[in-house]
Amino acid sequence: MKCVVFGASGYAGAELLRVLSNHPHFEVVAVGGASAKGLKVRDLYPASSSAVGDLVFLDNSELMWVIRSENVPLVFLALPHGESQRLVPELLEATSHVIDLAADFRIKDPTQYEQWYGHRHFCSELLDLAVYGLPELDRSNIEGARLVAVPGCYPTASTLAMAPLVRSGYTKGKVVVNATSGVSGAGRSLRLESLAMSILEDYRAYGLRTHRHTVEIENNLGVKAVFTPHLAPMKRGILATCYLEPSESYLNKFSSLGQDQQDEELYELYSRFYESDPFVRLSRTPPSTGSVYGSNNVSISVTYDKRTETFIALGAIDNLTKGAAGQGVQCANLVVGLPEDSGLMQVGVWP
Amino acid sequence: MKCVVFGASGYAGAELLRVLSNHPHFEVVAVGGASAKGLKVRDLYPASSSAVGDLVFLDNSELMWVIRSENVPLVFLALPHGESQRLVPELLEATSHVIDLAADFRIKDPTQYEQWYGHRHFCSELLDLAVYGLPELDRSNIEGARLVAVPGCYPTASTLAMAPLVRSGYTKGKVVVNATSGVSGAGRSLRLESLAMSILEDYRAYGLRTHRHTVEIENNLGVKAVFTPHLAPMKRGILATCYLEPSESYLNKFSSLGQDQQDEELYELYSRFYESDPFVRLSRTPPSTGSVYGSNNVSISVTYDKRTETFIALGAIDNLTKGAAGQGVQCANLVVGLPEDSGLMQVGVWP
Amino acid sequence: MKCVVFGASGYAGAELLRVLSNHPHFEVVAVGGASAKGLKVRDLYPASSSAVGDLVFLDNSELMWVIRSENVPLVFLALPHGESQRLVPELLEATSHVIDLAADFRIKDPTQYEQWYGHRHFCSELLDLAVYGLPELDRSNIEGARLVAVPGCYPTASTLAMAPLVRSGYTKGKVVVNATSGVSGAGRSLRLESLAMSILEDYRAYGLRTHRHTVEIENNLGVKAVFTPHLAPMKRGILATCYLEPSESYLNKFSSLGQDQQDEELYELYSRFYESDPFVRLSRTPPSTGSVYGSNNVSISVTYDKRTETFIALGAIDNLTKGAAGQGVQCANLVVGLPEDSGLMQVGVWP
Amino acid sequence: MKCVVFGASGYAGAELLRVLSNHPHFEVVAVGGASAKGLKVRDLYPASSSAVGDLVFLDNSELMWVIRSENVPLVFLALPHGESQRLVPELLEATSHVIDLAADFRIKDPTQYEQWYGHRHFCSELLDLAVYGLPELDRSNIEGARLVAVPGCYPTASTLAMAPLVRSGYTKGKVVVNATSGVSGAGRSLRLESLAMSILEDYRAYGLRTHRHTVEIENNLGVKAVFTPHLAPMKRGILATCYLEPSESYLNKFSSLGQDQQDEELYELYSRFYESDPFVRLSRTPPSTGSVYGSNNVSISVTYDKRTETFIALGAIDNLTKGAAGQGVQCANLVVGLPEDSGLMQVGVWP
Repeated sequence: MKCVVFGASGYAGAELLRVLSNHPHFEVVAVGGASAKGLKVRDLYPASSSAVGDLVFLDNSELMWVIRSENVPLVFLALPHGESQRLVPELLEATSHVIDLAADFRIKDPTQYEQWYGHRHFCSELLDLAVYGLPELDRSNIEGARLVAVPGCYPTASTLAMAPLVRSGYTKGKVVVNATSGVSGAGRSLRLESLAMSILEDYRAYGLRTHRHTVEIENNLGVKAVFTPHLAPMKRGILATCYLEPSESYLNKFSSLGQDQQDEELYELYSRFYESDPFVRLSRTPPSTGSVYGSNNVSISVTYDKRTETFIALGAIDNLTKGAAGQGVQCANLVVGLPEDSGLMQVGVWP
Repeated sequence: MKCVVFGASGYAGAELLRVLSNHPHFEVVAVGGASAKGLKVRDLYPASSSAVGDLVFLDNSELMWVIRSENVPLVFLALPHGESQRLVPELLEATSHVIDLAADFRIKDPTQYEQWYGHRHFCSELLDLAVYGLPELDRSNIEGARLVAVPGCYPTASTLAMAPLVRSGYTKGKVVVNATSGVSGAGRSLRLESLAMSILEDYRAYGLRTHRHTVEIENNLGVKAVFTPHLAPMKRGILATCYLEPSESYLNKFSSLGQDQQDEELYELYSRFYESDPFVRLSRTPPSTGSVYGSNNVSISVTYDKRTETFIALGAIDNLTKGAAGQGVQCANLVVGLPEDSGLMQVGVWP
Repeated sequence: MKCVVFGASGYAGAELLRVLSNHPHFEVVAVGGASAKGLKVRDLYPASSSAVGDLVFLDNSELMWVIRSENVPLVFLALPHGESQRLVPELLEATSHVIDLAADFRIKDPTQYEQWYGHRHFCSELLDLAVYGLPELDRSNIEGARLVAVPGCYPTASTLAMAPLVRSGYTKGKVVVNATSGVSGAGRSLRLESLAMSILEDYRAYGLRTHRHTVEIENNLGVKAVFTPHLAPMKRGILATCYLEPSESYLNKFSSLGQDQQDEELYELYSRFYESDPFVRLSRTPPSTGSVYGSNNVSISVTYDKRTETFIALGAIDNLTKGAAGQGVQCANLVVGLPEDSGLMQVGVWP
Repeated sequence: MKCVVFGASGYAGAELLRVLSNHPHFEVVAVGGASAKGLKVRDLYPASSSAVGDLVFLDNSELMWVIRSENVPLVFLALPHGESQRLVPELLEATSHVIDLAADFRIKDPTQYEQWYGHRHFCSELLDLAVYGLPELDRSNIEGARLVAVPGCYPTASTLAMAPLVRSGYTKGKVVVNATSGVSGAGRSLRLESLAMSILEDYRAYGLRTHRHTVEIENNLGVKAVFTPHLAPMKRGILATCYLEPSESYLNKFSSLGQDQQDEELYELYSRFYESDPFVRLSRTPPSTGSVYGSNNVSISVTYDKRTETFIALGAIDNLTKGAAGQGVQCANLVVGLPEDSGLMQVGVWP
């Protein structure tokens, strides 16, 4: 099945190309990247495989022409924020399925969107059509969808870490999400904060109180969230460490159990919740980002601290893969009826 | 003034040597390090300055002999956990002042000590003599002290970030401390988890629910703490991101103010609290560990998130300096009546 | 086709497992690792794919039993130096093909072996049977071989960078090979020099004049070599920067040409030399190790500096892949008659 | 003594501020940085010490006004290439001594300058006045100088590594300098190649055959040089690995000696050559950049490989300190008659 990738010059777009190079059924026939127009993928990413390395970056209108003339049924968007909502109406006339890695269609409520993103949505009439592409929470929703909004990296890691707890009614009140990302999350634009000299031997917090992924986490779980992202000196990876309060329901049911027994109950709860999810790996020890490097897996652990009456749930992903491109391909597989893990099991790197 | 350093082969001990090399009044006359006995400091740390590079590592009994024969009045201990409590009784007979970087004398209550450290204290009769060496919280206590227990790295960063809030009665309930450290915190022992291959391109949590620094944070602030340490791929630095709930007293006083006004009030509160502390740097933006690299400073920011009713307080230190050796020298200065910042203002590295 | 991996707990062995997980025709049925006996692959390498993650580390005699009872026709060895020469005689009775990643069978001359490795070879009668597994230099040799000695990481990068020049007679005298490796090359053993604290923010030379890979480079090219390896703060990658003197033959033929023309001639020379090699990527700009991260490619550039009359040839590989495990699988493909690139095209990681 | 720093917003300028903060006799009264005009030093470099952190960046004309009105006798220039030669004529009328960290006045011959720098020198009449500021090679030259051209980072490391050999007549022909630098050498400008994503887990060569430091190395030693710089994923440090051929004179004198004896003779030669140089540290093992991190030291080792008849000389420096700012202050000390190491002994960082 032919597909094209808009915004392939950025890191998430490049990761799409890497993942799609491994895919047995999708073939990338053209790539976009206005800033790199005329260059080959190989010029920007010398490590790209032969399958995609020779593709030449086109601008958006050239890509649109390719989609129309070759009847391309599947389109991936990895564009800077705000560009997808301008392209999608035209795209939906030209192609069957659009997988959007950007935030443009993740928020259903245009008022809420405006509140967090600071401007009116340009295409709010399509918000209802878009489905939120987190297969572990609602797979059926995605099957056959015409427009998929792939979740943000932080919301993916933290939502999957907390969902079994919250959805079982075992928590109350707001959640605290303290997360750390590698620098690919900051994108390929030229900023002082992204220079190696600003990143090496440094660790920082940013976006306190106001990061746009906050609302996404809140919508996913139906709770208020305090979200603080941080930046670590590494290329890939997100670890979300989440703190939640137990509800009366939880305390009534489990407070007579010891520490280890409660942790075992939680492990069982999570095992059942994710029993048919090929990319979820539960762990009895806290996960690290290295354990999911380059892969589409999410590694999750959970514990309840009896002493302080607090749940601590951790989720680790590769922000470019499960946090962006890999999850996009996972959604595309569902959209077109392929096995959910097609082309996704062999992309991790270790040691 | 002559001094000696026990445990100088480890990273905290080495940092002591570096800091003391810059000190105008302290002279290191001998260093200990059983595992490196007979080697020079320069052999282990080629970057060491001439002042200390030629010192030869002695074993503990040789060091004791030096203290006695040269009447050394000041002794620094940077030993593995548990060794200080065996040495201190004899040391206090031989020298005037002992500055201990280990955890041995940080917990006043022997029962609590046993609970968190897993064994009975070998020298509980001296726990009352020891003073906790966090000058920003109680400076007068340290002046002239015979035995100083220098705080742990995580407790230093997090306590200083939260103390003004907690001590003013503006918070209620437990606190959440989510902290990240560079790898020097793991020490110089040979473990798979400390190999570069286990650290590069990786970020992990460890010690959930049970890290021994938890009780130290709780004792400092008089509140329960959920504490989760993490490890980032860098050599030095700790950033503690702390979450606290507002008390009725805070809400009554400030909830009518806007977001920015509340943050300004908090900034003023912290400014007053730390007005005479030479190493505290308040910041209106979140601090990064790079901003205190190699220095004895602590960089602090605080904000109140009106939307979720949560305080977020951050503290950044260099774990080897303000989190260990630098703070030890700061205490030593107070102990012997020198200006608190003697030898400590010039040790940072940037860019 | 079934295969087993000895020494799978080390980094090269683990990389074998990663690469073999992607292979369409080889199936790993058992893995060895005495130090990890009883653990699962997943316990040591949480990122391992499902295909191999559940395998349990066996000791060598258990592995030998598996080979015999299941008639395993293909065996990979990733053992510490010296162990292969003790195992191979027995192995060759039990299996059809042995691919050895160690240095044990790379040197044909037992005297030369003893000179560089400091001990007599335990199995010199098999040195003649062993073929040196550098397919780009002699592919036919490897087809059907019973025992393949996979080249060292530095010799692979440097030999491939220089071979077209040296074999065409365009150079004279010794060559200088200045190479830099990531830390996975130092292996998984616990040494102070391999701690993250010894690696981060540091760059060092080691093994001057005496590194064992020197003789391998010399044998490959038939010239004397000055070889200096270095260590950089990264996990994977080798870049070899090689300096060679032009022969009279070269000068007579090309010295009338300008700088750019000579470089173009060299590019053509290299293109012809490597025209049927799927993993060689020629580049007109100097390669970087990032461009081959996790892949089996070797990226090569060459220039002639007219001003100083010196060739500069560069070769970049991933030391674990093309420098060890990937090349081992490439050889195995040739040995059993599969396409040389089976299972090897999809393993790189970018961005 | 008052001084000012032009170009203090860049990394070399910032390092000047750090080093000068430690200086007992120099006081920075004003700093320049057009791009940061109006900001404080602390805004760009939060780690800056109190002494300089509150200085406000001025533009060049404001700085000139400060120099004139306050009779500032000492001026440091850390400007982008080409700007110094436009400023120096006016500066020399306003101040007593100018220490230029740029390349503008390093090349004595305007023709040679034009050849390597691609444009005519704007101020060639002052080339004779300028002295090359490498104190270890010619200290007396620098004393009292009005205009000092501080050497480049690569030339400093490689020249000091090779000078004793070359100046003793023990070498013949060209030299090969293979060097690796941390990323601070690339400066603070926004380029894709300087992003953390382009640097982490990567190692590359650049500037083959044409790097401008080549001519500086050649002029220092009076030999032709093949120079290949590389970039490693770290902030600070340069290691130059240099290869030289023995002359007949060397062979006649020493070839009867064994490997170790020859190395010992070389160690003695270097010891004598650098016997009165406070920043040179000779080592019998190859130096690493970590051993000079943040310090003004240069660590040097040398060996002769009998087998291949090749000298291998290594020099390690911190590119920002001995490779730029520290050496500038070392020169300034000599210029104004202070002890050469004033303010420079305490700036290193370890572990």
